[in-house]
Amino acid sequence: MPVITLTTDFGLNGSYVAAVKGVILGVNPQVTLVDICHTITPQDIAEAAFVFGTAYACFPPGTIHIVVVDPGVGTERRAIALATPTATFVAPDNGVLSYVIHERAPHLAVDGEAGSETLAEAFTIANPEYWRSTVSPTFHARDVFAPVAAHLSLGVPPSELGEKVIGLVTLPLSRPRLEQDGTLVGRVIYIDSFGNLVSDIKESDLRGITGTLAIEVGGRVIKGLSRTYGKGKGLLALIGSSDYVEVAVRDGSARYLLKVKRGDEVRVRGSA
Amino acid sequence: MPVITLTTDFGLNGSYVAAVKGVILGVNPQVTLVDICHTITPQDIAEAAFVFGTAYACFPPGTIHIVVVDPGVGTERRAIALATPTATFVAPDNGVLSYVIHERAPHLAVDGEAGSETLAEAFTIANPEYWRSTVSPTFHARDVFAPVAAHLSLGVPPSELGEKVIGLVTLPLSRPRLEQDGTLVGRVIYIDSFGNLVSDIKESDLRGITGTLAIEVGGRVIKGLSRTYGKGKGLLALIGSSDYVEVAVRDGSARYLLKVKRGDEVRVRGSA
Amino acid sequence: MPVITLTTDFGLNGSYVAAVKGVILGVNPQVTLVDICHTITPQDIAEAAFVFGTAYACFPPGTIHIVVVDPGVGTERRAIALATPTATFVAPDNGVLSYVIHERAPHLAVDGEAGSETLAEAFTIANPEYWRSTVSPTFHARDVFAPVAAHLSLGVPPSELGEKVIGLVTLPLSRPRLEQDGTLVGRVIYIDSFGNLVSDIKESDLRGITGTLAIEVGGRVIKGLSRTYGKGKGLLALIGSSDYVEVAVRDGSARYLLKVKRGDEVRVRGSA
Repeated sequence: MPVITLTTDFGLNGSYVAAVKGVILGVNPQVTLVDICHTITPQDIAEAAFVFGTAYACFPPGTIHIVVVDPGVGTERRAIALATPTATFVAPDNGVLSYVIHERAPHLAVDGEAGSETLAEAFTIANPEYWRSTVSPTFHARDVFAPVAAHLSLGVPPSELGEKVIGLVTLPLSRPRLEQDGTLVGRVIYIDSFGNLVSDIKESDLRGITGTLAIEVGGRVIKGLSRTYGKGKGLLALIGSSDYVEVAVRDGSARYLLKVKRGDEVRVRGSA
Repeated sequence: MPVITLTTDFGLNGSYVAAVKGVILGVNPQVTLVDICHTITPQDIAEAAFVFGTAYACFPPGTIHIVVVDPGVGTERRAIALATPTATFVAPDNGVLSYVIHERAPHLAVDGEAGSETLAEAFTIANPEYWRSTVSPTFHARDVFAPVAAHLSLGVPPSELGEKVIGLVTLPLSRPRLEQDGTLVGRVIYIDSFGNLVSDIKESDLRGITGTLAIEVGGRVIKGLSRTYGKGKGLLALIGSSDYVEVAVRDGSARYLLKVKRGDEVRVRGSA
Repeated sequence: MPVITLTTDFGLNGSYVAAVKGVILGVNPQVTLVDICHTITPQDIAEAAFVFGTAYACFPPGTIHIVVVDPGVGTERRAIALATPTATFVAPDNGVLSYVIHERAPHLAVDGEAGSETLAEAFTIANPEYWRSTVSPTFHARDVFAPVAAHLSLGVPPSELGEKVIGLVTLPLSRPRLEQDGTLVGRVIYIDSFGNLVSDIKESDLRGITGTLAIEVGGRVIKGLSRTYGKGKGLLALIGSSDYVEVAVRDGSARYLLKVKRGDEVRVRGSA
């Protein structure tokens, strides 16, 4: 059975998510529906892009992903279907697919560079044949994205949905900068439900740093990387499951201990 | 695969919802389970009726809906299966199906009028053959409603469950009143996870009002209806995805801005 | 379709649960996934053991259960697959399966007594053939438990996963004690989403107590057991759906009324 995933800021109260699922099952009763996350901060496109970016690659080939954080719903913002060799993504063209586009279709981005071509193609979602018969201007997830994804899962080619397009909107991805003294300065880009602070510093960014790492965040300095949450004592840093440097507290919450919030600096330098 | 949906006030902690699903899958492993909402305020039958009422029509024909907010579980309140040509509803007979009965089976309501007949029929859930072998007086969702819904999904006719009944309990649905000066006075009946204030005023209720609409709520007046959340500025009003007049804040929360709560008045009048 | 259930402390934000599901579906697209609970207090093995313990028996024969609350992830703590005639359990060997082991495989516990043998067997999860090709030391749910459970659902015998083992870790299960004056002294072991206080006193523990029961908790005394939540008035006690003595408030929350927390005493005695 084809898999359709859902990522939204609809929250866990009310029936918005269920309405989307009902519509999908009305078009294709044979799909497996998987929630990725519905507790994205309302209208926070960057958070949705990151959270979705950490999960989509775990799904099997052929998965169709619906990603809807859509403050511009009903306005002239485009809706797109991004088809890659391994998955198809259905979303507003507002940056919510930033990590996917960066990783799988960089040539389709607004600022896409020549030489970055992949087999990915994007299409506008413009053909009302694949929408619900009545479309509310405030609920395209239910009336446009859901039926479109369900039709894709039945084998409708993405090219049927609309015009082939390029110039997809992407947010600037948070990346650490290297200061003159060799310090790598990144930021906390996500705080998970354990209170672990996920930075924008990738394991590969650390290669140029020699000596024992010193990780500074929230006014505290952590010496060296632990391999696991359970092996450190108290405050610790490690490479998390998505390959970012993460700061955690053994059996506790780094968020509460350090009173750090998204956007705060994480500084890494080598020490003798 | 037949679809069974679940609407409850069991919350997202603990295992009550999972127990219900386990029992269903034990009777019919071939169902697709969809959560509509489990965060209904405990024992709030009216909220459950409304939330469920905004979603059930999105599901495909043949769907079986379990709706359990049931402060009287284990007492002499009836349990019913309401069978309509497009869906079957399994619930305590306490008003939790008020919108469904009003829309699909008005002749079965306690105060059902002659001339409102539909093809819908209701049956008591009385035949223990379709229940779990042991029934806890405190958890009929698991021990009665779940196995009954699963048996229905296998093709058991609703008439096997018990006696045909009428006189189903419905709550008075909140409706706006028209004042002498032509002002339509409704109420906030639901606040969604974005903080949007959903009123009981339907788009069709506005037909008699001439001139530019003035919508008053929480001490503020909004002039005119926006078409989308993204097109207004600041505080705005629009027709939401379930056809009710809604008050929202662009990229924000009307609940927090206006400090309005469920039950507060929403006044609409025309202005020259 | 085989059922795989998930119980974790991953919370409802972020994408950790979804990543686990994506990996499972990549190995076996034909499974039915059911969430038991993901809001276990982070690292609270005892809470997970209890919540899972109240739900697993509701699932059909052949179900595979993943239970991951795993503060020692990546350290030398064992990972196990516990195979019983009716279900298979995949988890860290840290006590998270305490109730299951107690009820279905007592002879495999660290302190298992002779004469308690069942058909259950346990195996270490040691054979990387059934893992993801790369394993993060911080996310075994995604990289080890998920693919292992999915392979089991395809028919891989548990004995393929590793060595047969005994001496499984179990937490001491909370049990009431009998005082000299005949008072049974238990504790609140769980508070559900209605605010009902679930004690560790089983219905069968009450057999020796004569006369009307007097249940004391949070400084209040309740006389007698109600049969249902709806039949008592105000504060009441009853036998809950998992056969434990529970204290509730009709149409309210015992947690808020009594300001009781997990671990607080519940005293039961007979009265003339």
